[in-house]
Order: sequence, then C-alpha cells, then structure tokens
Amino acid sequence: MAYTLEQLAEQVGGKVVGDGSCQIESVATLKNAAAKQISFLTNSLYTEQLANTGAYAVILTEELIDKCPVNALVVSNPHAAYAKIATLLSPPAYPRQGHHPSAVIAPDTKVHPDSFIGPNVHIGQNCVIEEGVSIGANTVIGNDCFVGKDTVILANVTIVGKTRIGQRGLFHPGVVIGADGFGQAYDDGAWLKVPQLGGVRIGNDVEIGANTTVDCGAIEDTVIEEGVKLDNQIQVAHNVRIGAHTVIAAATAIAGSVTIGKHCMIAGAVAIAGHLTIADNVVITGMSMVTSSIDTPGSSYSSGMKAMPTRVWHRVHARLMKLDELAKRLINLEKNQHDK
Amino acid sequence: MAYTLEQLAEQVGGKVVGDGSCQIESVATLKNAAAKQISFLTNSLYTEQLANTGAYAVILTEELIDKCPVNALVVSNPHAAYAKIATLLSPPAYPRQGHHPSAVIAPDTKVHPDSFIGPNVHIGQNCVIEEGVSIGANTVIGNDCFVGKDTVILANVTIVGKTRIGQRGLFHPGVVIGADGFGQAYDDGAWLKVPQLGGVRIGNDVEIGANTTVDCGAIEDTVIEEGVKLDNQIQVAHNVRIGAHTVIAAATAIAGSVTIGKHCMIAGAVAIAGHLTIADNVVITGMSMVTSSIDTPGSSYSSGMKAMPTRVWHRVHARLMKLDELAKRLINLEKNQHDK
Amino acid sequence: MAYTLEQLAEQVGGKVVGDGSCQIESVATLKNAAAKQISFLTNSLYTEQLANTGAYAVILTEELIDKCPVNALVVSNPHAAYAKIATLLSPPAYPRQGHHPSAVIAPDTKVHPDSFIGPNVHIGQNCVIEEGVSIGANTVIGNDCFVGKDTVILANVTIVGKTRIGQRGLFHPGVVIGADGFGQAYDDGAWLKVPQLGGVRIGNDVEIGANTTVDCGAIEDTVIEEGVKLDNQIQVAHNVRIGAHTVIAAATAIAGSVTIGKHCMIAGAVAIAGHLTIADNVVITGMSMVTSSIDTPGSSYSSGMKAMPTRVWHRVHARLMKLDELAKRLINLEKNQHDK
Repeated sequence: MAYTLEQLAEQVGGKVVGDGSCQIESVATLKNAAAKQISFLTNSLYTEQLANTGAYAVILTEELIDKCPVNALVVSNPHAAYAKIATLLSPPAYPRQGHHPSAVIAPDTKVHPDSFIGPNVHIGQNCVIEEGVSIGANTVIGNDCFVGKDTVILANVTIVGKTRIGQRGLFHPGVVIGADGFGQAYDDGAWLKVPQLGGVRIGNDVEIGANTTVDCGAIEDTVIEEGVKLDNQIQVAHNVRIGAHTVIAAATAIAGSVTIGKHCMIAGAVAIAGHLTIADNVVITGMSMVTSSIDTPGSSYSSGMKAMPTRVWHRVHARLMKLDELAKRLINLEKNQHDK
Repeated sequence: MAYTLEQLAEQVGGKVVGDGSCQIESVATLKNAAAKQISFLTNSLYTEQLANTGAYAVILTEELIDKCPVNALVVSNPHAAYAKIATLLSPPAYPRQGHHPSAVIAPDTKVHPDSFIGPNVHIGQNCVIEEGVSIGANTVIGNDCFVGKDTVILANVTIVGKTRIGQRGLFHPGVVIGADGFGQAYDDGAWLKVPQLGGVRIGNDVEIGANTTVDCGAIEDTVIEEGVKLDNQIQVAHNVRIGAHTVIAAATAIAGSVTIGKHCMIAGAVAIAGHLTIADNVVITGMSMVTSSIDTPGSSYSSGMKAMPTRVWHRVHARLMKLDELAKRLINLEKNQHDK
Repeated sequence: MAYTLEQLAEQVGGKVVGDGSCQIESVATLKNAAAKQISFLTNSLYTEQLANTGAYAVILTEELIDKCPVNALVVSNPHAAYAKIATLLSPPAYPRQGHHPSAVIAPDTKVHPDSFIGPNVHIGQNCVIEEGVSIGANTVIGNDCFVGKDTVILANVTIVGKTRIGQRGLFHPGVVIGADGFGQAYDDGAWLKVPQLGGVRIGNDVEIGANTTVDCGAIEDTVIEEGVKLDNQIQVAHNVRIGAHTVIAAATAIAGSVTIGKHCMIAGAVAIAGHLTIADNVVITGMSMVTSSIDTPGSSYSSGMKAMPTRVWHRVHARLMKLDELAKRLINLEKNQHDK
C-alpha cells in the first residue's frame, strides 16, 4: 500500500515541509531507510542519524526541522504519528474468518461465524466468541468465558474459566489468564488449598505480552481496566486491579490485592508487595521494590543499586553492612565534639 | 450445595455464636456479602468492614466476637476454616472421566480408564497415568513419566521425559517440568552442551503455578517434596531440592543445586544463588538476593532497598556510591580527634 | 553404549592414570557413582567426595591426581571433557523422522522429508523446515519462518512469523520467539499500538530455555548470534542484539535495543535497561540492575544488597534512608574540626 506524504500528513494532522507528492510505501529506521520509506525521530539518542538518512521523509517535531535534510512531516507527537502511519502502511493481518476442522468446541458455546478459530484450538462450555475474534492455533479457552468483538488471541494461549475479555484486545502466545491465585492456608503442619472462586475481567483495548500470567480472583474478580498494556512475563496475582491506560514493562511482579491507578507507567522487573494502593499517573522506575502504598498522584518512585564494577560494589557493600556501626561512630564523634 | 452454619461448624471444629440453623450457600468478602453467604476475617486491614457486613455469618477468632454484628463461626484458624468451608460449598470440578478422541497416546503407555484426557493431549511412551488423573487440553507429557492418583494437570502444560509426580498434585497452565537444566561447558571459544540426564521427582500434594519451570537434574534428579506449593513464574534450576511443605511466591528464581529446607516461606521475586543450603522454617522476604547459605532454622532474611520518591533515591544513591569515601573520612575524623 | 577409559581419553584428548581398559557405561556424581561409571570434579565444593567415590574413573585436572583413589582421566578442562563423554555415553534421542498425521501444515510450506513433526503441530505458510529438524508436539510455527538443519524445537513452543533460526538449535518447551515487541505511543489519553514489523534472526548452535521470550523487532530484526545460550524465563525485548557465545542465566530481563557483546556471561535475575551497550567478555553477577552502558571489555559488574537477617536489614535500611543526612553531618563535623 502506498500513500503520498501529503496523504499521510492529513491522516495524522501534520504539516509537510518539502515535497508532499512523494510516494511512501513503508517505514524504516533513520539509519537504514531508502527510497519510498518514511522514518521518525523521537529519541534524541538518534538525532545524529538524521543528517545521513536515506528516507524520503522523516516524522519529527517543529524544532528539529532545520536539521532535516529530506522531506519532513512535522507533528507535535512523532511517536503517535509514526504508530498511525506504520499501521496504515502495514495493517495487521490477523485472520478473521474460518474455523479449522481440528478445533474442538463445546456444543453449547456460541462462536460467531465471522471469526477465526485456528487448528487444535479447544473452547469449553458456555463461552461466547464475538464477531471478528481471531484465536490462534493450539490456544485453549475454558468454560464460561467471553471474548469481545475483534479481539485477537494468538497461539498457545490459555484462558481458564470465567474470564471476560473486552473488544479489540491482543493476547500474545503463552499468556495464561485466570489460573488459580496463590491461596494457601496453614493448617496443622501442611498447606490447605484456598479455593480460587473469582474470575478475571479485562476491559477493551487491552494488550497482554507473551508468557504473562493473570490469576483469577480468590472470591471476587481480578480486574484489568480498558486500555491497559502489559509487556511479557508479568505476574498479576489474584484480586489485583490495574487502572485504565496503565502500562507495565516486562518481568514485573504484582502481588495479590494490589490496586494500581489509571495512567501509571511501571517499568520492567519491578516487584510490588501485596495489598498496596498506587495512585493515578504514578511512575515507577525499573527494578524498584515497592513495599508501601504510593498515595501521591503523578509521583515518581525508584529504588535499587545501580550496577558498578564488582570490585567497587564489594567495597560499597561491605561499608553498607557496617552502616549502622558507622552511624553510631558519627553520633559519638558529634557528642565528643559537643562535649569539648 | 447448602449447609447450616452448625453443620459447617462441625466440619471445621468451630463454635457457633448466634443462629446455627441459618442456611449458608456460598462464600463472599465481608464488604460484598449478602444473604446466605459466609465471610471470614483474617487480615486486620479489613476489620472495619466487619461492622457493616451483609453476611449471614463470619468466620473469625474468639477475640473478635464482640465486634461481629452477625452470626459468628469461632475458630482458632479462620483462614484454614475458610479454606475448608469454601471447598465444601464450591467443590473443585475438574473432569475425571473421558479420553478425548483427538488425544494422541503412545500404545505402550498405561492410562487408567477412570481418568480424563482432554482434546489434543499428547502422552509419550512408557508412561503411567493413574486413576482419577485429569489432563487438560493441549498438554504434552513426554516419555517415561508417572502421574499419581487424582493429580490434575491443566491445559497447555509440558511435562518432559522422566518426571515422576505424586498424588493429588495440581499443575497450572504453561508449567514446564523437566526441561533441560542449564549446563554449558566452555571449550575453545564456544559453549558445549552438558547433557542433562536426571529426571524430576515431585511428591504428593504439590501445587505448581502458571508458567513456572522446573528443570530436570544434570545427573541425579531435581526433587520437590510433598506438600510444596509454588506460585506462578518461578524458576527451579537443575538439582534443586525443595523440602516438604515449603511455599514460594511468584517470580522467584532458584539457581542450580540449591537445597531448601522444609516449611520455609519464600516470598516473591527472590533470587537464590547456586549451591546454597537454606535451613528448615526459614522466611525470606520479597525481592531478597540470597548469596550465602542460611544455616539457622526459623530465621528470617531480607535485603533490597525500598522504593522512595525518585528524587530522594537519586540523593541516597549518590551518597551510597561514595560510602567508602565517607567511611574513610569518618575514620580520619576519629583519628584526628584522638590525636588531640 | 560402553567404552573403555582409554577410548574415552582418546575422544577428549586426555591422559589415563590407572587402568585404561576398564569399561565405562554411564556417568554419575562422585557421591553416588558405582561400578562401570565415570564421574568428574570441577567444583572445589565437592573435592572431599573424591576420597570415597565408587566410580571406576574420575575426570579431573593434573593437580588433583594425588587425591584420586580410583582411575583418573586427566584433562585440562574437566567440565568440557565431561560434557563430551556424557554425550557419547548418552547421546540425545530426539526423533528425526516421521510427520504425525494430526499435524496441520500449510500447503506451500516446505518440510524436509527427513524431519520429525510431532502430534498437533501447526506450521503456517511459506516456511522452510530443513533436514533433521525435530518439532515437538503442540508446537506452533507462524508464517514465513525458517528452521535450519538439525534444530530441535520441543513441545508447546511458539515461533511467530518471520523468525529465522540457524542450524543445530535447541528450543525448550514454552519458548515464545517473535511475539510483538512492547511498542506503545501515548496519544490523547490512551496508548496507541506501534506496529512491530521486524523479525527475529537466530544464529547456529543457539539454545533457548523453557518459557523464555524473544520479541520481534520494531522495524529491523532482533538478533541472537551463533552459540548464544539462554536459560529459562529470560525476557529479550525488541531489537536487542546478543553477541555470539554469550550465556545468560534464568530470569534475566533485557529491555529494548540493548546490544550485548560476544562471550559475555550474564547471571540470573539481572535487569538491563533499554538502549544500553555491553562490551565483549563482560561478566554481570546475579540480580544486578544495569542502568548504564558497560564499555570496558572483560569487566565485571555487580549490584544489589545481599540478604541478611531481617532485623539487621531493617537497621541498615533505616540508616540508608538517612544516608544523605548522615553525610551532611559528617561534612559539618569536618568543617567544625577544621575551624578549630
């Protein structure tokens, strides 16, 4: 599919500086772009690549226009404009039609005829699969699930019983939704299973990355609100609630009954302890260990030691272990000085 | 299924305060309970919800009886009593009968007729699947495996060859048991695969959470003793031994040849370095980095910086980097003071 | 399969001390070895087990020969020699022949007749599966993929479209290769999907552990060079490049556009922030938080607090939170002393 730069500018509400009639067929990085390609600049790390780009056009902000040696598409938000243009030029191609004969679907489940069910899929009883849904090969959906219009579930996903998924969702391979939460009661020297009776409710426009797990609730539901985007290998425990339009990067683990606000940005490899509340618009940087609620909306939280040469780390660590003693010696010095 | 409160009290060895004849049909949270429901109170975070609960009855300890506005079921361990009552009212409904025709089972494998084998399951050669076992759709079991009586293996699980699983186990979707341990020998500029020849032995009453991985042993077996409960996305490397009735929360990673004692409680996102030994009854708090053996039974270990406002963290971190210098300056001050 | 010790010594270029004619049938640990078994000693933790070993022979280095009570196979690198001998005695037994009738393979895909395609496998359009490839049950391979000669892909793996895999690879269950990278552009209060248009290129002799995820590139490819070995549950984000012969242990998370050099050794549970560069031959110890590029080849980096008794940790942590204040008080003391 090809567009003129002018057509693309109209689609994203941008302004062309240069030749609006040039034909654009695909996207590329600044460094490797060639004829008929458009690129973009959002990360200042890559500004120096602008000078030598082979792209026909570059999406950028007003203030970079002077540095742009080729046609420019000027917008206020180049990343969003790029996303829209890349989607136009390379629209997603998930199948939306055809039920493979090897799929095993319980007879009382309602599957819309305009949907795709791949090879070796299994769908349990009493489910509803709406129009436009695409379910990839070898995915398993348990009993009593609902999958909303145009949602895409890729291969080898497992959706356990009582999960309700909204519209236009995107679930990557290896995702597990609705497995039992980790409820164990200690009784007489052994652990007793606490039945996990809740479901999972997932809003519209949610994306969940490969091998991420979202447990069902213990009694009530685990909830992921609309527009939430989860990266790969995230753990969401029972009865967590993640507010609308929050994004979470890979390998973050969220313990049970945590409530996360809307529009938060949580980086990768973070761990959040159970029963905490995180306000709206909070930012948490990578590998932070969150052990208290964060009450101030819009605040930014961090923790963790940054990697340093191992030799230096050994010294810092040894001092750290003696920090209490060090502090006491300082107090002593202050006392002595004061006494003089 | 419905029970009177008195009947439930008998089942859990508790005492009714109030109307023992009231009918209980299901469980609910204190906050949202309504007629014919029973709730429980184990976490003091939720004590204030007791006053306004709509439950017919609440499971709690003796000392909270005065605060309970409805019927009470008094027990010494409300969490365990709740687990038993919830199991009575909502018994697990895993299928235990029927072999789906799409399942592919090697001819020399013994599958008990009173067991469930779901759609598209594959079971390799020389396995034994005992009575009452339930194997979910699209699960794969390799050669030479044993699955004990009444064990439930859910959908999309992979059990690689030479795994022996005890009775009444519960394996959630995406679990991988018995994949190769990470054995690599450096040789002449490249890594040589070290064959992983051991198996995995898993005791009775073990639960393993979604997407958790347990590697086979390098020469001898990786061992998970009876009653162990593992949450989601845990990594158990080759030749780890986890002692009976130990519980481990999500996203914890255990390196090779670690021996963990019995009745330990290991929180989430912990990392344990290779070849260490952890004594019995040890508690390790979340996100701890365990780099030495823990020899004292019943001890509690921790590490990690707690998240703080990013601004504050930057200051603390900068000071931390200079901690060695700071300590030297303190020593100098002490010396000077002494010299005077 | 049995070999004399002399034959094994020839295979690995070692020297026999003792009876080269003794028959060796299998490998064992020093502690549990018996007749016809060979063991090895590479970790000084286990030196004391040498004295009482029941092995017919032990693989070790020259300097340990005096402590060896049985036949010795002396080599400079016992770990590599052990790997070779274990492979000889217990050669891998992956099936290489037979296409199961339940497999669903797109008609235009080229599958070499001398390859194994297991039950319920699905392979999409326009793929090439070369000679000697083994694909385990329930694995899904998307469109436009290439799997090189003799590569083994085990059960329940998902290879999404546009992945190219070299020869002699080994992919463990639950692996997901080529799922979308995490590209989200904020636009008017919600997140817009940034299409992930790149593929994944994986060199020869790469091993990837259970449930590890490798995302496709945003525009260009994610690249894993030859000889890389990844353990379980590792996250490799879009446009990461991992240099040849680098090994990474379990549960490590690598953010987008990170470039890692050749021959690095990265331990488990490490997190590496986006857009960084790590030089060749770098070592990163477990649970390090890498937030800056590491430019010095061969350097070793670390971070993180080691677990200590919780009581002590509370004290250290409290002092840590006051470190800035402590430093200021020290500076004040220095000033006062100077003023006198």
